[in-house]
Amino acid sequence: MRIGMDLGGTFVKIGAVDDDNRIVADTSIPTRLSESPEQVAADMCGAALQLLADHGIDRGRLRGVGIGSPGVIDTAGGIVLYSNNFGWENVPLTGWIRSRMGVPVRICNDAQCATLGEMAAGAGKGCRNLILLTLGTGVGGGIVIGGRLFTGGHTGGAVIGHNVIRQGGEPCTCGRRGCLEAYASATALIRETKRAIAAHPDSLLGRGWLPGQVNGATPFEAARQGDSHARRIVDEYIVALGDGISNLVDIFRPDKVLISGGVCNQGEVLIDPLNEYVRGHCYGGASLDIPPVERAQLGNRAGIIGAAALCDQED
Amino acid sequence: MRIGMDLGGTFVKIGAVDDDNRIVADTSIPTRLSESPEQVAADMCGAALQLLADHGIDRGRLRGVGIGSPGVIDTAGGIVLYSNNFGWENVPLTGWIRSRMGVPVRICNDAQCATLGEMAAGAGKGCRNLILLTLGTGVGGGIVIGGRLFTGGHTGGAVIGHNVIRQGGEPCTCGRRGCLEAYASATALIRETKRAIAAHPDSLLGRGWLPGQVNGATPFEAARQGDSHARRIVDEYIVALGDGISNLVDIFRPDKVLISGGVCNQGEVLIDPLNEYVRGHCYGGASLDIPPVERAQLGNRAGIIGAAALCDQED
Repeated sequence: MRIGMDLGGTFVKIGAVDDDNRIVADTSIPTRLSESPEQVAADMCGAALQLLADHGIDRGRLRGVGIGSPGVIDTAGGIVLYSNNFGWENVPLTGWIRSRMGVPVRICNDAQCATLGEMAAGAGKGCRNLILLTLGTGVGGGIVIGGRLFTGGHTGGAVIGHNVIRQGGEPCTCGRRGCLEAYASATALIRETKRAIAAHPDSLLGRGWLPGQVNGATPFEAARQGDSHARRIVDEYIVALGDGISNLVDIFRPDKVLISGGVCNQGEVLIDPLNEYVRGHCYGGASLDIPPVERAQLGNRAGIIGAAALCDQED
Repeated sequence: MRIGMDLGGTFVKIGAVDDDNRIVADTSIPTRLSESPEQVAADMCGAALQLLADHGIDRGRLRGVGIGSPGVIDTAGGIVLYSNNFGWENVPLTGWIRSRMGVPVRICNDAQCATLGEMAAGAGKGCRNLILLTLGTGVGGGIVIGGRLFTGGHTGGAVIGHNVIRQGGEPCTCGRRGCLEAYASATALIRETKRAIAAHPDSLLGRGWLPGQVNGATPFEAARQGDSHARRIVDEYIVALGDGISNLVDIFRPDKVLISGGVCNQGEVLIDPLNEYVRGHCYGGASLDIPPVERAQLGNRAGIIGAAALCDQED
């Protein structure tokens, strides 16, 4: 039995995960960011111990605790180096949790946790080489090589959302321009849709949506209704995401590439042309193995299951 | 003692490399591409055995043979899957050489060999995580993770010259547009310089060079003489190479990034602004380790030494 903790800006989701990677009990507590990071750690441990007690799970069966956290993580040292959303810097989270829980504690980035979760129990089951891209407000992701989470030679590696795919392109939250995140996030879809509404107020898109109503699904919906501007936004989104994925395939040649996040709810309308694009744009073409791009399966559970799976990663 | 073979389109360079990674004897034979691949393999073995005999090196001391080859290599199977330059397809080179030499034989891409060579005896000595970019007619490279050459989860991985850095940009030899190779190769420098000569025939660059005289050093030389068009070409080259390197740093966070190829002869004029650009453009900025970009040291010897070093890579 392991505990997986998915630390988010609003809630911490905590689950007891058995050795078959099933969540046998779970709970959720508010992330009290107004308190000190040490207090947040104490809250997390309190909730985890309560969860075990409530479900009659013997603490002696607990092998470890895994944590997924936003931000830049020193995985070897078990430290949250910084997390913009939390306002945290150099927070030794695993040390505090280890001392309260009495078992080994590991931590990695939340998107990396999701990748391990999908490999343990989701769309990446059976894969030894896997890439997952999380397409949300930003673009995060995780890389697994030979069954092991790859986090870079030094802290701060395995960042895949900030690869420049269009030099001099759209400004990115990271300060650079033209990053994958600036084109493949839900935020990018919203930006382009709002621009199209402003530029073409008389179009189906412009008449059908107020800027404040726009979300990542809007251009897909408007394209379905026949709007040509929305169609262009969707097509360009697929090309950008496809270029980002092809770049990663050329480097890693994984067994599969998974995508997660709200935009994946579009299903085949996104996945089919995306696979077609990737098949047509990887180096060496059809003469080399081109991995399928698939939708992640575990949704919110990936974080907890992946955090637990982190306990079983070799050093 | 190991034999390193650097298989090129014109010559095969062959060296006997001792356990301190010194080339104790070497030779070179023409690559007879008009003959069958099996005959080329026989030529290579004949030359290697002659080399040992000529220098009184006991065949019994030979631990293995390593080969660096252009093209796409199935490193696990020891097969040259295809090499455009050679017109080879599915050539089981290591099998033929093993049967003639009677020792284990390994093969990888030539740029990957150069990376191992620099790690064994050059600018990457002491590194456990290393990236090398070869800047020539194309852009090749190698990736070392934790002391091991990384070749991808499946054959065809670790291709770093064909990452798209400018969507919809210059056509690349690979069929895509906007690859790093299309901006960071010597070929790209020559293309841009010829364009500038055509567009600005009265400039210092246009008056000083005929298009047929242009090589990768031309824009650097003209920039030194004060030509503004050449200065722009050099500046844009550094930005493109810098973006490509920053992308790789964000993913791999290696100890060092090495660059090799004729353009590196420019020295500090290239290396200093390139390091400055990379320091300013990696994710997380100065709060995370940013590896230095350095010039490779071994020149042509990197191929032989790296091929020999391949013999000592763990499976």
